[in-house]
Amino acid sequence: MKVIKKKRGTIYFGDGCWDALNNTISILKPSRIFILADTNTTLHCVPVLLKLVSTSISIQHINLPAGEQFKTIDTCQKVWKQLSEQGADRNSLLINIGGGVVTDLGGFVACTFKRGIEFINIPTSLLAMVDAAVGGKNGVDLGHLKNQIGFIKDPLAVFVDSSFLETLPTNQMTSGYAEMLKHGLIASEVYWETLKPFKPDRPELIEDAIWESIEIKNDVVVADPTEKGLRKTLNYGHTLGHAIESYCLESNDIKTLLHGEAIAIGLILANYISSELTGFPKTKLSETTAHILRHFPKEKFSKADIEQTLELLKFDKKNVDGVVNFVLLKNFGSHEIDKQVPNSLIYKAFEYYKNFKKII
Amino acid sequence: MKVIKKKRGTIYFGDGCWDALNNTISILKPSRIFILADTNTTLHCVPVLLKLVSTSISIQHINLPAGEQFKTIDTCQKVWKQLSEQGADRNSLLINIGGGVVTDLGGFVACTFKRGIEFINIPTSLLAMVDAAVGGKNGVDLGHLKNQIGFIKDPLAVFVDSSFLETLPTNQMTSGYAEMLKHGLIASEVYWETLKPFKPDRPELIEDAIWESIEIKNDVVVADPTEKGLRKTLNYGHTLGHAIESYCLESNDIKTLLHGEAIAIGLILANYISSELTGFPKTKLSETTAHILRHFPKEKFSKADIEQTLELLKFDKKNVDGVVNFVLLKNFGSHEIDKQVPNSLIYKAFEYYKNFKKII
Repeated sequence: MKVIKKKRGTIYFGDGCWDALNNTISILKPSRIFILADTNTTLHCVPVLLKLVSTSISIQHINLPAGEQFKTIDTCQKVWKQLSEQGADRNSLLINIGGGVVTDLGGFVACTFKRGIEFINIPTSLLAMVDAAVGGKNGVDLGHLKNQIGFIKDPLAVFVDSSFLETLPTNQMTSGYAEMLKHGLIASEVYWETLKPFKPDRPELIEDAIWESIEIKNDVVVADPTEKGLRKTLNYGHTLGHAIESYCLESNDIKTLLHGEAIAIGLILANYISSELTGFPKTKLSETTAHILRHFPKEKFSKADIEQTLELLKFDKKNVDGVVNFVLLKNFGSHEIDKQVPNSLIYKAFEYYKNFKKII
Repeated sequence: MKVIKKKRGTIYFGDGCWDALNNTISILKPSRIFILADTNTTLHCVPVLLKLVSTSISIQHINLPAGEQFKTIDTCQKVWKQLSEQGADRNSLLINIGGGVVTDLGGFVACTFKRGIEFINIPTSLLAMVDAAVGGKNGVDLGHLKNQIGFIKDPLAVFVDSSFLETLPTNQMTSGYAEMLKHGLIASEVYWETLKPFKPDRPELIEDAIWESIEIKNDVVVADPTEKGLRKTLNYGHTLGHAIESYCLESNDIKTLLHGEAIAIGLILANYISSELTGFPKTKLSETTAHILRHFPKEKFSKADIEQTLELLKFDKKNVDGVVNFVLLKNFGSHEIDKQVPNSLIYKAFEYYKNFKKII
């Protein structure tokens, strides 16, 4: 088992993490345990968890519909009501088991129910393992605006068992892979290279890389928990990526993208803008674009699509006083934050994305 | 001006507090200012505030319907959306001006919008001045269950100007007075005596007592911010008081009570139970009951009303593992927490309340 020990939010990874979970529960002594899962993890992961948890404390189960479209305050209301009706009190424990929607929403529900009950996250998607489960951000979407409501509080602990990935659909694996690529871009070219063997149906190939992604994210978050500076680098590719994701969710004409699929496009656009504004090397731009497009097929955006996507930027959480701030790269692992980017350059970035031809 | 200085949640009281507000804003330098008020404070208090605030920063106004029935997540959603549409960003400031509904709901909205923006509370009702504005509790109701959703975070600062009370309806004044009586019971008989000259249409008579109530509550909250022990005393009279308030809100047959009106009944019941279980002196029981009934006319509860009120106790936030814990008094200023009370004694307390005859 690998462990990142913290006052709150200790992360347990791999063999032995279930002993650690049982130990955590026996120290906490909650009055009751509630397991929050979505229809997918209720089917594939909760039965596994129930076999592994060894306690005499009453365990109840709350089931959510699966999908980003249910990451809303309305869903929170349903969960709060169920907790209330099922007798949850201030000493109850909520275990969130699932992808980022479940851990983000469940964390927010726990932090606000009766002014805060204890909670544990068990990420079961690759995206949630390398991203959502680390750093304490939680919350829900407001309409189509992502994560507008929420706050930052670490769960009591996080338990990561990559064997849950065996039941994950391959498009979800690839979606999570986008965040690992981002970690490569913002942290190190060496790490980027270790990510290349990725195959969406072979999670065991990237077991070590998953742990390293968790470490990269954790190092950033610990250094800057309230996002004054360094933590902003985790938003690399996300300013446009989030806007693309929101726009696709809203639009009837264009296919809805998974979070990582939108972020993959955002990374290519951010790399291009970086190459124009902050000297990200052109050769690395081509190389990274080619690699990303190997896993994420190109999407088509009309001029109107791009215009409307840019409109959404004004709702970006990092937007301060009407100015949208980008994170850009000088090179792998070397960044500049709070950079302003003219719209004309964003259009050129979409052009670059559209016209890029695989060389290999 | 009187001040209780704290890292967050500094309380400014009386003449000069508006200079302090302007000073706070000029130090914070928010990108925009949003004023949250309800229809009453929009009419009576916001115009006063706008004359007193001196800043070149853009000020926008969000108006809520007035009343406890709007202290819901649905109202929060409307405010979040308005903030979003009106361009609020992470550096925006929310000023909540109103009674406890506005400050509780506004605090929750601010803490969760884009994972937290800064906020200031300006309590304008007596209840909000002596209770809601101190201690950092915020949140909303879940159905008829009061304050089930929320958490604890102090506002940046609190500004209390008792001249706002001049436009407060007298029943609202009396409602706030109930919390001051509670402070007397849990803190000191001397303070209780100073409260006796109260007249609902003469706020100036209790100016000093308001400040003392703020100090009493603040001392308790600072000593026990997370409600492990001492802070529970602030719930004196509230276990049954809240259940009565919820029940009346729910019931079609019985008149809806203001918070303080329900708490006044809860105080009489708690004093009676204390006299039976923890030795609260019988003479003081009669004396306090007579004084409370001088300001709060008796309500009628049938056996069925009481039964259904007791049913609601299981949703009490202080309820742990199915056991409802009461705060009881040995005397003025001397308490016991986490006391269990048999239902039979609660029925007897309602009997006492029903049969009490004013001697004087």
